[in-house]
Amino acid sequence: MARKRSDKMLVVKIDATGTNVGQRRTPDVVVVEEPMTIQLDGHVVATTMRTPGNDYELAVGFCHGDGLLAGAPVTGVRYCANGSAVDSQFNVVTVETGGRAPVPTPRLGTTSSSCGLCGSENIDELATRLAPLAPESVVAFDPLLLATIPTLVREQQPLFATTGAVHAAAAFDVNGNISFVREDVGRHNAVDKVVGAMLLEKRIPAHSLGLFVSGRASFEMVQKAWAAGFGTVVSVSAPTSLAVQTATRAGITLYGFARDRHMVRYSPA
Amino acid sequence: MARKRSDKMLVVKIDATGTNVGQRRTPDVVVVEEPMTIQLDGHVVATTMRTPGNDYELAVGFCHGDGLLAGAPVTGVRYCANGSAVDSQFNVVTVETGGRAPVPTPRLGTTSSSCGLCGSENIDELATRLAPLAPESVVAFDPLLLATIPTLVREQQPLFATTGAVHAAAAFDVNGNISFVREDVGRHNAVDKVVGAMLLEKRIPAHSLGLFVSGRASFEMVQKAWAAGFGTVVSVSAPTSLAVQTATRAGITLYGFARDRHMVRYSPA
Repeated sequence: MARKRSDKMLVVKIDATGTNVGQRRTPDVVVVEEPMTIQLDGHVVATTMRTPGNDYELAVGFCHGDGLLAGAPVTGVRYCANGSAVDSQFNVVTVETGGRAPVPTPRLGTTSSSCGLCGSENIDELATRLAPLAPESVVAFDPLLLATIPTLVREQQPLFATTGAVHAAAAFDVNGNISFVREDVGRHNAVDKVVGAMLLEKRIPAHSLGLFVSGRASFEMVQKAWAAGFGTVVSVSAPTSLAVQTATRAGITLYGFARDRHMVRYSPA
Repeated sequence: MARKRSDKMLVVKIDATGTNVGQRRTPDVVVVEEPMTIQLDGHVVATTMRTPGNDYELAVGFCHGDGLLAGAPVTGVRYCANGSAVDSQFNVVTVETGGRAPVPTPRLGTTSSSCGLCGSENIDELATRLAPLAPESVVAFDPLLLATIPTLVREQQPLFATTGAVHAAAAFDVNGNISFVREDVGRHNAVDKVVGAMLLEKRIPAHSLGLFVSGRASFEMVQKAWAAGFGTVVSVSAPTSLAVQTATRAGITLYGFARDRHMVRYSPA
């Protein structure tokens, strides 16, 4: 079933540029946001507010990015009704590994046991399960090509075109070919959908590809890129200091503020 | 102890506007992101990636927005070492009500028990603990005044000024006075800090004030505004359909795309 990804509604557009306020009632389109619960082999691992669509990819990508699969192959993905109403079943997705993935600890539990983590301890924790990318596996991208990526991805964002504000993530190769463009109200969901789609097509690790993200590059974005093996991350906005430290540790080349054919390289500096 | 909120580092600025690529190494400033664990009467309720600063407000605002206080007064807020190293203790904050707040159920557990929630059920759940705002308590703002708010808040965003990308939230009154400007790498954290600060100063419910948010207006933003009693929410970006439905149910006047003296009113339409 194709779920609605945007909603039509009446709005009032207001122009306060002059001394009198102009108002006109007009139809508009806004992006849909719905909660989705992700399960792994029947265990609830998270609920995320997401834009419906590519739900299987989102569930798989989330489990992969959080290290929950621990290398176990995905044997199935399905919506799960849990005996409840049909109209709710499209908001619960179960990733199946036939029990080969370890039983997930709820994230909250994990965090509570390591109560008092600082940012660098977060990176240390990641490094226990993710090896730095081998420098020879990381493809170097020409900045002239990188400068074209944001515009090329934008051309493949139908939801952004109609709603004016929804995040996107995508993979790109050294020739500037864009693939796996995914849109979502959450930037982390958009990345999970890209990674999940690639994993389901056995395209992970993504050493020879770059990851484009439309929003900021936070720690979680770099964590997901590292887990998927992307050697390069391009963000249209700012990175955080923890994201830069994580990219450096991972051997990921990290660009931010990729706009108007300018960009800033944060790692390596 | 004042924690660092931004970090200096060397970056490479790249200009790919011509046929040759210009590159120069230069110092830059990026925003800090660190995990913070929030406890209520000693029980872990969440961990959020945040920019250090106003941590007590963040913890209190989070607990309030999620309905965890259930009306219990906050008797204390403190950093919590849990016997671990001093340098980790500033990433755990305990909100205390002397046990008057109910023992929190981890969010994950809450969600799993209502496995298969759809968006409108989410609103129904909110409505069981939050009454719609009384229309007579909601102050009407002049659009000419609202149009000035984004610029006025921007002038009080030192972190944005140095890092170029960090969210802000603030309260404003009918005369355009801005108060409680808070900045954070996460837009939900920025709102929690505003609400937490107001709650600690006994300024909640905020019926006569508007809430400004620098990012999009998602369901969670409107939920937090509703819990705090803001009658008006102004966002510089798009709302989601669930946010509009929630604002309508709450009786909140919701504006989006507040930029360049234009804005769009989504609720009431």
